[in-house]
Amino acid sequence: MTDRQMHFGLFHLPLGRHPYAWRRDDAEGHPEDLAWAIRTAQKAEEGLFDAFFLADNLVGPVLDEQGRPGGFEPLTLLGAIAATTSRIGLVATVSTSFSEPLNIARMFASLDHMSGGRVGWNVVTSQSDRAAQNFGWDKLEDHATRYARAAEYIAVCRALWHSWEPGALALDKASGTMVDRHRVHDINHAGQFYKVRGPLNLSRMPQVEPVIFQAGSSGDGIGLAGSVADVAFTAQDSIADGLAFRDALYKAAAGRTDGHLPLIMPGVMPIVGRTNAEAREKFALLQDNTDIAAGIRQLSGRWGYDLSTYDPEGPVPEPGPNVHGQSRVQMLLQKSREENYRLRDLAALAIASHGHRIVVGAPDEIADDLEKWFTSGAADGFNIIPASMPDGVDDFVDLVVPVLQERGLYRKSYAGKTLRAHLGLKTPE
Amino acid sequence: MTDRQMHFGLFHLPLGRHPYAWRRDDAEGHPEDLAWAIRTAQKAEEGLFDAFFLADNLVGPVLDEQGRPGGFEPLTLLGAIAATTSRIGLVATVSTSFSEPLNIARMFASLDHMSGGRVGWNVVTSQSDRAAQNFGWDKLEDHATRYARAAEYIAVCRALWHSWEPGALALDKASGTMVDRHRVHDINHAGQFYKVRGPLNLSRMPQVEPVIFQAGSSGDGIGLAGSVADVAFTAQDSIADGLAFRDALYKAAAGRTDGHLPLIMPGVMPIVGRTNAEAREKFALLQDNTDIAAGIRQLSGRWGYDLSTYDPEGPVPEPGPNVHGQSRVQMLLQKSREENYRLRDLAALAIASHGHRIVVGAPDEIADDLEKWFTSGAADGFNIIPASMPDGVDDFVDLVVPVLQERGLYRKSYAGKTLRAHLGLKTPE
Repeated sequence: MTDRQMHFGLFHLPLGRHPYAWRRDDAEGHPEDLAWAIRTAQKAEEGLFDAFFLADNLVGPVLDEQGRPGGFEPLTLLGAIAATTSRIGLVATVSTSFSEPLNIARMFASLDHMSGGRVGWNVVTSQSDRAAQNFGWDKLEDHATRYARAAEYIAVCRALWHSWEPGALALDKASGTMVDRHRVHDINHAGQFYKVRGPLNLSRMPQVEPVIFQAGSSGDGIGLAGSVADVAFTAQDSIADGLAFRDALYKAAAGRTDGHLPLIMPGVMPIVGRTNAEAREKFALLQDNTDIAAGIRQLSGRWGYDLSTYDPEGPVPEPGPNVHGQSRVQMLLQKSREENYRLRDLAALAIASHGHRIVVGAPDEIADDLEKWFTSGAADGFNIIPASMPDGVDDFVDLVVPVLQERGLYRKSYAGKTLRAHLGLKTPE
Repeated sequence: MTDRQMHFGLFHLPLGRHPYAWRRDDAEGHPEDLAWAIRTAQKAEEGLFDAFFLADNLVGPVLDEQGRPGGFEPLTLLGAIAATTSRIGLVATVSTSFSEPLNIARMFASLDHMSGGRVGWNVVTSQSDRAAQNFGWDKLEDHATRYARAAEYIAVCRALWHSWEPGALALDKASGTMVDRHRVHDINHAGQFYKVRGPLNLSRMPQVEPVIFQAGSSGDGIGLAGSVADVAFTAQDSIADGLAFRDALYKAAAGRTDGHLPLIMPGVMPIVGRTNAEAREKFALLQDNTDIAAGIRQLSGRWGYDLSTYDPEGPVPEPGPNVHGQSRVQMLLQKSREENYRLRDLAALAIASHGHRIVVGAPDEIADDLEKWFTSGAADGFNIIPASMPDGVDDFVDLVVPVLQERGLYRKSYAGKTLRAHLGLKTPE
């Protein structure tokens, strides 16, 4: 038993992550139904999760590729969730490649005020030329340029979030001072990518800055996470890999002036049963019905070329020169080598969880696994990826959370009101 | 009595429009309090309003200028209001000058799905170099270029909103087809300002397109409103002016392929009392406490140069070459000439309602005025601008609405569920 407490995010997937999950008879959910999103967030809040986490995708479904509907745009959805929950953190993924910093800084500030300080930003730089083609570009900027742009983008947003001193929104009836404009400052940013005068037109927000999540595990991604992130969302397959990631991340964070080491929250897809046998049966139903051809199509997207002409029973081919998500591809490749996978095995696995670790078992077995990762130091918490809905959320909250609470590893009520409080983070000065 | 029914928008102002209103003892409200915004929207919904209307401002409070806090960013706020209301339309002002069409098209689509088809977009092009300076520009593009950009921006959004055919989001468990990708199409837009491949990553929305509001009354503004708007939000001072505006608007709409003539909703600021005397007393309290110097500062912003050295008791000076909002300035100038205003009179009036018409009286007098405008054809409805809060909304809903219902001029319940249904607009094909 320790004072250190586990943190949980819920990776919101209205139909579950597993490609077969939504086709089960008892599957529920709709990607464009607000009531469903609210119900899911409220269930995660019942489970005292730190955060409701929204991924993002700027590309519509594409002919000849595995494509899911994108679902709601994250920032507008968080407005709705802010109004229908009271404690859980609200994290939106927003790319820094295709928008203006002032617009995004303002939306996060708005959401932080609306939610009483519960907002987080998962910073990504986008991985697809198709995304770039929706914004006037033929293809993405190169990896290093995207990350340089991201760093400047975040710096502009931070300057805007600090452009109002505390108390500048005076609303003083007696004197008639609505805003003390001597305490609101232009930022006059002029950098490589952006030129922004400021100030923001919202007052200093409850958390001062949203909690910054960073999900890239490439060298540039770790560099950015180390230098600016509060939380690193990552995909790690073993505790050894997780500890190596932690070492690299902490090294990247060594020069930080705030002295903060990012919390590490790997994704994990739990398949929970009342018994081990029930859990295995549940997972087998999903895996046995996986469309291997679709898995190979999805893997082709990651690998950067068409794998459909390769023998599914043969070995896994080498990735092409233009992979989609380089760190994830490396992880999948390494796992294939270690486990001696056939192409079909890797396709089934990759499509099951998008490369995130899958844990199958009874509630205490799931808890054992998470505890082992947590006590080893490879994880400070987990982004829970529901395989199927609604059981992927409900079973975790109803069955696994009580075991972790019993073991003293997880809160029994929210102690604070902000996402920073849940995560034990200081408010920026 | 007629079948034609009045339409109402509530111009949301958390502290009321009148500059003194928020300082009264019984004033309530906060620009950054979500509960207050929800309460206000729910009151407007109780009054069966067509729409909850959010203005916007991309500029923070500026030293030496009259500046109010901007309040919440409109699109994120509408997410919250969508989740806490069920029938009222939700209109956000968004400029076409400083963002990417795909991002904005997607947010409106998201909000329309979330709200079950209640979203509208008030299209503006921004009026201030300070706004441009928040987005990498030194100053605004010229008026004609901004309007050309707006027209293309809207065209891109419309193409994106039509990129999914009906039924393309199949979610067919039996066949495993989530999205019928043969019914989702790239838009491949390449124009003067934007290059966008598409498709959108949300399915066809309930209203297909948000209801388009347009608030500019300049020549370019009327041109844009005539060609694309469903509703024109305008400031008109007399029925004769209103009818002239209607003629110009209908002329601009003559070439439309959809054959639709925009609904006309002038802004009006009602000061309601239980009796005429009570209303006059209420207005006098506000006007007598108006800070004339602040009014002259605000007028200086519109006039394009500093008027503070002019004698408040003297005549109204001519506007400068760079006015802020040309049609509004023309209207104020004309009124000054007609009424033989001193500078202080115009300052007090301009700051009271930002140039919108003020009607003071008992509920049946307010109703008389609105009915006269409505039956003359100068207005199809009104955007109600609350002078003070909460009475600026509550008194209108509790006292004026029943009179209009009694006269058969206004709905007694919502007949439809979408903003298009409330306004009697067809769904685009």
